[in-house]
Amino acid sequence: MAYQVGVIGTGAIGVEHIRRIHQRMGGARVVAVSDLDAARAGDVAAGIGARALPGGRDVIAAPDVDVVVVTSWGPTHEEFVLASIAAGKPVFCEKPLATTAEGCLRIVEAEVRHGERLVQVGFMRRYDAGYRALRAAIAAGQVGEPLMVHCAHRNPSVPDRYTTDMAITDTVIHEIDVLRWLLDDDHVAAQVIYPRKTRRAASHLHDPQLVLLETSRGVRIDVEAFVNCAYGYDIQCEVVGETGTARLPEPAAVLLRSEARRSTGILVDWKQRFLDAYEAELQAFFDDLGRAGPTGPSSWDGYAAAVTADACVEAQRSGRVVPVAARPRPAFYGSPGGAGSAR
Amino acid sequence: MAYQVGVIGTGAIGVEHIRRIHQRMGGARVVAVSDLDAARAGDVAAGIGARALPGGRDVIAAPDVDVVVVTSWGPTHEEFVLASIAAGKPVFCEKPLATTAEGCLRIVEAEVRHGERLVQVGFMRRYDAGYRALRAAIAAGQVGEPLMVHCAHRNPSVPDRYTTDMAITDTVIHEIDVLRWLLDDDHVAAQVIYPRKTRRAASHLHDPQLVLLETSRGVRIDVEAFVNCAYGYDIQCEVVGETGTARLPEPAAVLLRSEARRSTGILVDWKQRFLDAYEAELQAFFDDLGRAGPTGPSSWDGYAAAVTADACVEAQRSGRVVPVAARPRPAFYGSPGGAGSAR
Amino acid sequence: MAYQVGVIGTGAIGVEHIRRIHQRMGGARVVAVSDLDAARAGDVAAGIGARALPGGRDVIAAPDVDVVVVTSWGPTHEEFVLASIAAGKPVFCEKPLATTAEGCLRIVEAEVRHGERLVQVGFMRRYDAGYRALRAAIAAGQVGEPLMVHCAHRNPSVPDRYTTDMAITDTVIHEIDVLRWLLDDDHVAAQVIYPRKTRRAASHLHDPQLVLLETSRGVRIDVEAFVNCAYGYDIQCEVVGETGTARLPEPAAVLLRSEARRSTGILVDWKQRFLDAYEAELQAFFDDLGRAGPTGPSSWDGYAAAVTADACVEAQRSGRVVPVAARPRPAFYGSPGGAGSAR
Amino acid sequence: MAYQVGVIGTGAIGVEHIRRIHQRMGGARVVAVSDLDAARAGDVAAGIGARALPGGRDVIAAPDVDVVVVTSWGPTHEEFVLASIAAGKPVFCEKPLATTAEGCLRIVEAEVRHGERLVQVGFMRRYDAGYRALRAAIAAGQVGEPLMVHCAHRNPSVPDRYTTDMAITDTVIHEIDVLRWLLDDDHVAAQVIYPRKTRRAASHLHDPQLVLLETSRGVRIDVEAFVNCAYGYDIQCEVVGETGTARLPEPAAVLLRSEARRSTGILVDWKQRFLDAYEAELQAFFDDLGRAGPTGPSSWDGYAAAVTADACVEAQRSGRVVPVAARPRPAFYGSPGGAGSAR
Repeated sequence: MAYQVGVIGTGAIGVEHIRRIHQRMGGARVVAVSDLDAARAGDVAAGIGARALPGGRDVIAAPDVDVVVVTSWGPTHEEFVLASIAAGKPVFCEKPLATTAEGCLRIVEAEVRHGERLVQVGFMRRYDAGYRALRAAIAAGQVGEPLMVHCAHRNPSVPDRYTTDMAITDTVIHEIDVLRWLLDDDHVAAQVIYPRKTRRAASHLHDPQLVLLETSRGVRIDVEAFVNCAYGYDIQCEVVGETGTARLPEPAAVLLRSEARRSTGILVDWKQRFLDAYEAELQAFFDDLGRAGPTGPSSWDGYAAAVTADACVEAQRSGRVVPVAARPRPAFYGSPGGAGSAR
Repeated sequence: MAYQVGVIGTGAIGVEHIRRIHQRMGGARVVAVSDLDAARAGDVAAGIGARALPGGRDVIAAPDVDVVVVTSWGPTHEEFVLASIAAGKPVFCEKPLATTAEGCLRIVEAEVRHGERLVQVGFMRRYDAGYRALRAAIAAGQVGEPLMVHCAHRNPSVPDRYTTDMAITDTVIHEIDVLRWLLDDDHVAAQVIYPRKTRRAASHLHDPQLVLLETSRGVRIDVEAFVNCAYGYDIQCEVVGETGTARLPEPAAVLLRSEARRSTGILVDWKQRFLDAYEAELQAFFDDLGRAGPTGPSSWDGYAAAVTADACVEAQRSGRVVPVAARPRPAFYGSPGGAGSAR
Repeated sequence: MAYQVGVIGTGAIGVEHIRRIHQRMGGARVVAVSDLDAARAGDVAAGIGARALPGGRDVIAAPDVDVVVVTSWGPTHEEFVLASIAAGKPVFCEKPLATTAEGCLRIVEAEVRHGERLVQVGFMRRYDAGYRALRAAIAAGQVGEPLMVHCAHRNPSVPDRYTTDMAITDTVIHEIDVLRWLLDDDHVAAQVIYPRKTRRAASHLHDPQLVLLETSRGVRIDVEAFVNCAYGYDIQCEVVGETGTARLPEPAAVLLRSEARRSTGILVDWKQRFLDAYEAELQAFFDDLGRAGPTGPSSWDGYAAAVTADACVEAQRSGRVVPVAARPRPAFYGSPGGAGSAR
Repeated sequence: MAYQVGVIGTGAIGVEHIRRIHQRMGGARVVAVSDLDAARAGDVAAGIGARALPGGRDVIAAPDVDVVVVTSWGPTHEEFVLASIAAGKPVFCEKPLATTAEGCLRIVEAEVRHGERLVQVGFMRRYDAGYRALRAAIAAGQVGEPLMVHCAHRNPSVPDRYTTDMAITDTVIHEIDVLRWLLDDDHVAAQVIYPRKTRRAASHLHDPQLVLLETSRGVRIDVEAFVNCAYGYDIQCEVVGETGTARLPEPAAVLLRSEARRSTGILVDWKQRFLDAYEAELQAFFDDLGRAGPTGPSSWDGYAAAVTADACVEAQRSGRVVPVAARPRPAFYGSPGGAGSAR
């Protein structure tokens, strides 16, 4: 009676999710996989006693597949998520839900027509224990009504192919989503400022950037995106409310006293930072299947992130304050931080 | 092909372990349970589609049970662990392994006779991410050779039935084990000092206590055991080495600025503190079954903890420095922190 | 042979400076004072064996007065500083140097004509041990070239007469000066954003505000000015450089563990925060007199702060990015953070 | 009307105190000095416009000397303090007050006979802002009644002439004094334990050491004295009370994020650690002269430290618990932390 899972895409992330499902989920096993690289799909399938199928649509159509996990190349996500909805099968889709806001909207519309939630998007930060503690502190009124949020998203370095707009679509996209959920509020406008550039960035890349967001309640968010910060992978978030401030916890670390310094380590590899969150998001997805269906990041959350990212990219180009042009939210989906989001 | 598990004792800890096995272990399910309270065993069994058997020995003998988990009342542990060894079945046993050092030794001898490790004891701190990071820092030479360890083990309060010797057998027992593993060294002597007593302790209870341990390499350990400290459940450990010191991480927590204070929360409930460690120890136990058998805390570790605790209790009574009277370690078991212990 | 000091204005700040000169400076004593409130001046003079004179110009003119300290009402500063320069007497002037940028410029021009520095402005943060340590870290290359600075200036509350522009002229003015010195760089543009307003602010007051500054090298500064933050007086400053970040130290404080929290106190009264800096700025002023004259914040620094504040106030009104309209710096004065400033 | 000060001993500490008196004390100047090295005394005197006198007794006897500061070689302290008392002149004496408990007692008896306090001993830690904040927290009941104190006194290294007993007489002597004051309590017994020895210590030196003290109220103190700790000069003090714990503040320091670490600097040079305290103790001494005489560390405090140190040294030799053999305190002196001590 365990859930029988089909995984589309057996690259690094797909294999990691398969491992989690097999080792850390009590009630699920992978029965079918596919990959553009059929040999790779075959190897992965053989390793876990599953079948390799020719394509993602075959996985979705397989009668023994109850649940779909989409970890293929980004541009294919929309097609596979729409097919899963058409088949009435719950689907966990890695970021991005679709490569355009319009694509996200098509998924939203299909899901609304279907009449119940089937889709969860892989915005794993909502499952990070630190962000959850921060959200609980805000919800408990420990800082009063939020007025401002100061964030930093720093990577030690990026490859040469990383472009200026990827600071939004690959980097700040995480803050865009998690802050909607944290504040239970929607972004309404964006501005981007380019500070003095680090000499460590490629000539074509603006780095760092300062992204300013405004929410529907007037909360102002500043996100420093600095992807060649040299020193480590470092995620900061401070919420300033009417009576106090609350900061995202630093990851627990050994305090060393040595060589005339008190110090704690900072992670360098971003994959380490949200390791537990990746496991927790998947566990929550499967746990929810036994109840009323997904409660994690929804198609609408994927759409909302996409339209905000579009406004940020336009703000990069124009240097102006750009409004976020989102459709009205269907009643089908809850508020940004409420029902329909991770609880 | 999943491991079929029998659980002896379906009290609070047993039920928690059953939940973990079902929800968080990929390759194991519980097929049989027993409890002194047969009705309770029946309810638990019904809830998970397992059988309730009359007694622990029936669970061990059941042909479909591959692996035994002992979470019954402490005085019954020895019998069930010995029976599991006799049946050649791997067994995870909650603390204590046995209520006396002699009982532990009988298990050690049975396991040695059996010829391969079957037993893992529930010293969960070895699986806490903080202690593991601390051990890694020491192993990496970040503080040089350890010379001293300063510890504190503080509980907000204890019930009236908590007695002076329980500061050793229920409280400091965790430091006794985890420090052997952390230092890869054995305790050789103990002294106990009674500081000024808190007025919050029961009249019959010495609280706080200062437990001083010496290891075979001369490392000196001081453990403040303070079980009515009022303010929270707080575990501290600082290793002082030849070139620096390393502290056990504080649990990650939101940093609040409010009401004229910068603050982070301290846990009050001890069960919260090592929640992830309980899950990790069980996952490691099952993961190891597919390899060469248990590598976590062994029968010998259970025995070593018991003889050290005996020396501490004698030191409480005599006020003197008391040597730890341990047998020589069979070659069958590795060094305190090496092979045979959690890696 | 101690310096004989005349103090103009014996209000709270004047009396504090007199106390410091008498108790904490080895080589100076106050011989004459004046105040609009002649009775108060008389009382203060009597208490320290000095003379009370009718007006500030009398103090400056007194033959036995070597050095002038101006702690009178802000609008009178320009007149007394100009008179001190005319008399060729060193003068320590509390903030503001003058109430307008033009007034500051008249002082600058008078001092340049005089041919040597006589004036020090009371920007005490440059003498705070924390800011000096931060500056030393930057100067030592510990974070590489600065690219961004994130600041917060928070007060628990302000009286009703505090107006929106005072967030610049009374509050952010300190960041404006200390950041020029910290970065050895000039501000060239300003923008002000109004986040969601706290309900604790008066109806006429925008609070909090987010002030964005750009320097001549392209460094981007964001200053959160929040003067009804409720929880304490809190000054934050993080410099983000090409290889790391450096934060202004938190004031040293006892770490308490109590009531389920680890906490340190936050000051509530702003006067406590820079107490040592007030003493150090005055000691440095007198120490410098025995050498080549003032090296602390100069008339030019006072002017530079004033024109930047003007740009910020204009930005408050227009909602636009406003350039800082500063004259070219006379060679007479050093760079913002170099010679001519506190070393 | 400034105090005219005579300084006996113009070595490094003497010269520092002279500098402080001249630059940082409003109401005192040095008029006479002496030193075993007459040429040095002459140079120092010339530099400040004072007289050099042949010996310490000449300084004390000089009619224009109101106040004596003793910064000569330790074995000469007793003689000069006794002579100052005989002359009825207030005297600030660097540690130690005398090289033996008997010597301290002779000073106590002379002062009691004189009928009012004249002597202040240079236990500067009582004037450290951190210790004062810690004491205030305890006095305010923030941790309840103290039960235990955990301390560490670590130096990066010591010269070869540093001997095992100097861990008491030069190092732990500071904790011995400051804890009496902090707890307002007397030490009654001492034990010393030798942990595994660091290979960085000279062959003749036991290092580290663990010094255990008991107070008259039963408070237990453990002091780790580790004078070749390699990594820095580090002073730790945690008071554990009935409802919480309070730690001595870490010195304020810039928080760096660089090279994969969050870190703050640790001082290496002990002279930096209590720099402000040296200034504050001297300021308090002179401030008190204008009132009822010294309120800082008294002759009795010097004696109490000496007898406790004697017990510790005896405990080093015997390995036993050694009682502190102090005389009853004359009513002339207040309680360890009360009147007669720094307020």
